[in-house]
Amino acid sequence: MKRVAVVGIGQTKFSEHWDKSLRDLSTEAGSLALQDAGIEGKEIQALFIGNMSAGRFIGQEHLSSLATDQSGLLPIPATRCEAACASSALAFRQAYHSILSGQHDIVVAAGAEKMNDIKGESASAALMGAADQEWESAIGLTFVGLYALLTKSHMKNYGTTREQLAMVSVNNHRNGALNEKAQFPAEITIEQVLKSPMIADPLRLLDCSPITDGAAVTILASEEAAKNFERPVWIAGSGQASDTLALHDRKSLTEMLATKVAAKAAYGQAGLRQGDIDIAEVHDCFSINEIFAIEDLGFCKKGEGGKFVEDGKIARGGEKPVNTTGGLKSIGHPVGATGVRQIADLVKQLRGEYGKLQVNGARTGLALNVGGSGATAAVHILRSEL
Amino acid sequence: MKRVAVVGIGQTKFSEHWDKSLRDLSTEAGSLALQDAGIEGKEIQALFIGNMSAGRFIGQEHLSSLATDQSGLLPIPATRCEAACASSALAFRQAYHSILSGQHDIVVAAGAEKMNDIKGESASAALMGAADQEWESAIGLTFVGLYALLTKSHMKNYGTTREQLAMVSVNNHRNGALNEKAQFPAEITIEQVLKSPMIADPLRLLDCSPITDGAAVTILASEEAAKNFERPVWIAGSGQASDTLALHDRKSLTEMLATKVAAKAAYGQAGLRQGDIDIAEVHDCFSINEIFAIEDLGFCKKGEGGKFVEDGKIARGGEKPVNTTGGLKSIGHPVGATGVRQIADLVKQLRGEYGKLQVNGARTGLALNVGGSGATAAVHILRSEL
Repeated sequence: MKRVAVVGIGQTKFSEHWDKSLRDLSTEAGSLALQDAGIEGKEIQALFIGNMSAGRFIGQEHLSSLATDQSGLLPIPATRCEAACASSALAFRQAYHSILSGQHDIVVAAGAEKMNDIKGESASAALMGAADQEWESAIGLTFVGLYALLTKSHMKNYGTTREQLAMVSVNNHRNGALNEKAQFPAEITIEQVLKSPMIADPLRLLDCSPITDGAAVTILASEEAAKNFERPVWIAGSGQASDTLALHDRKSLTEMLATKVAAKAAYGQAGLRQGDIDIAEVHDCFSINEIFAIEDLGFCKKGEGGKFVEDGKIARGGEKPVNTTGGLKSIGHPVGATGVRQIADLVKQLRGEYGKLQVNGARTGLALNVGGSGATAAVHILRSEL
Repeated sequence: MKRVAVVGIGQTKFSEHWDKSLRDLSTEAGSLALQDAGIEGKEIQALFIGNMSAGRFIGQEHLSSLATDQSGLLPIPATRCEAACASSALAFRQAYHSILSGQHDIVVAAGAEKMNDIKGESASAALMGAADQEWESAIGLTFVGLYALLTKSHMKNYGTTREQLAMVSVNNHRNGALNEKAQFPAEITIEQVLKSPMIADPLRLLDCSPITDGAAVTILASEEAAKNFERPVWIAGSGQASDTLALHDRKSLTEMLATKVAAKAAYGQAGLRQGDIDIAEVHDCFSINEIFAIEDLGFCKKGEGGKFVEDGKIARGGEKPVNTTGGLKSIGHPVGATGVRQIADLVKQLRGEYGKLQVNGARTGLALNVGGSGATAAVHILRSEL
């Protein structure tokens, strides 16, 4: 199979950007990625952008052409991909496939979301577009409510503790405290998590990723084109899978089946096993989801994720560093941007350029981006050498 | 290059479906496509669905997983593509590229939109998500207003007449009157168009495609897989391009630059010229847009589109039959479904299975799907033999 590399990355600060529009943020991240790659826009042949719900957040669909215009890239083909919070991992995957198809050599995969200045409804209400409208959203469920149900199931079945959940947030904030792009770059303690306001029992405020504005961009190149770039990081595997939107239709409430199927596909394509993964960026929209990820990616047995966290194995110096740059919890979670942000962070780690956050010797990284309460999962495996 | 064929098609009736949900419509069209292809769902390896704005129309994003679940196709990868009214041509193109990439052999490309039972705002307001929110939507422009501006420019520059615009609608309704899937299967006269209510001068009600609910599905197969299907229709070329969302940023108000760029790419890939096209399905969201299409696809010189229509060249028995099955005007325009509906209709014509609407001897067809006021254009060329 052809080889494809990531040759440029860019990210805005994740924050409440009251003074910047979605088009500003997208353009800023795109410019940074072009600078990082050392190329000009005219070399870009297509653009893929992940965005969940700009139609509801800011009244703007059709972001693909808009981002292309604002970035001076017209008239190249531009496509928006959406699968809730997994939108930009899917944009990245389409970008990857478009190069594998032989149709393009150098393309942009971006993600962007502007969530704070929503009008007429709350961001939480808009986010429920990602759940099942007829069976979940319409009766008033929220995402933290859905994840609280999953948390209770996991606690009941496997004895996962409230403290172990808190340790996920503590780990991610410990890393994010050193990330200049993070929305909440501060360390927190287990006690602070346990005393933070209850949102949906048993999940508390500091179990929840925040509402964020931000954008992230990657530039992908074919093997031939990648020869002209320094520091390519290679895509070794890509997997994607779907599950029911509604929780009540799932076969299990203690695993994310889509993650398992997507991971199997990505591991298979890469010819790797979980033991080969040096670092992972996973989707901690709520603390429980990092425990699901650790288990469903095969880092430990089902039900042992809480212990895995408690034993410090996910720490930057641990056995399997997870969310080494802060995760969604500390960096922030502009929903449509997160998937590409995760990949950009992996690239920076695999290049060995992450400064204080660098995980030494990291050669193989995995990113897991999840949509909704697990109805979409996308797994990408990247390697510094292939 | 590898060859990819369309091996199955399905479409719901386009209508006001007050008794069916978006999931019902998607599933119905998908079942019809599987029946048409003669395969079971378990053979489908990935799904791509075009949808413009279900988040605003019905409060439901994340349609990709939902459609996959409702159709019994879990856990395959599923991706929603959006570029306003060009959403499903882009889904079709991603499906095509995913096969070219070697990642899949048999995939679904679908399109669906439910526009009638919108709550809290008008469908016209939701549709303005496809225009430039900051420069157009926010000041109260509507799409018929934007296209009225384009119409005035075309009339002023090229002497295109009010009657010629009416003849576009008359042609499309003449065809659509025989289309059992059409929302408005009735012939209309020039006089009726000219006496219909003014919407945005000079465009009248019968210049405008309607608000519609509906879904359409195609099944694509690699050359190897296509051997197991009867009646494959081959994808000869695919082109896509972007332009500014806002009209005031365009280089010209009398041509659709994105259409020209996309058409050039599709003709180039197919190794064909406009003279080789037997029939075309083009994006007559408003009557003027069919005249733009005829010119920008190269069927006649710039400015002569009105005369081309007046001379009867687009009629089913004419020199270049356009919108032979009714167009958006008569069939209806569920915005995210139209691109795939156009391709499904081409396939039916190229198979020679369109009964009363059959264009005899049609071997090569072109579909043009346009997003917004021309910010996205996608052109696909299909052939009965390659």
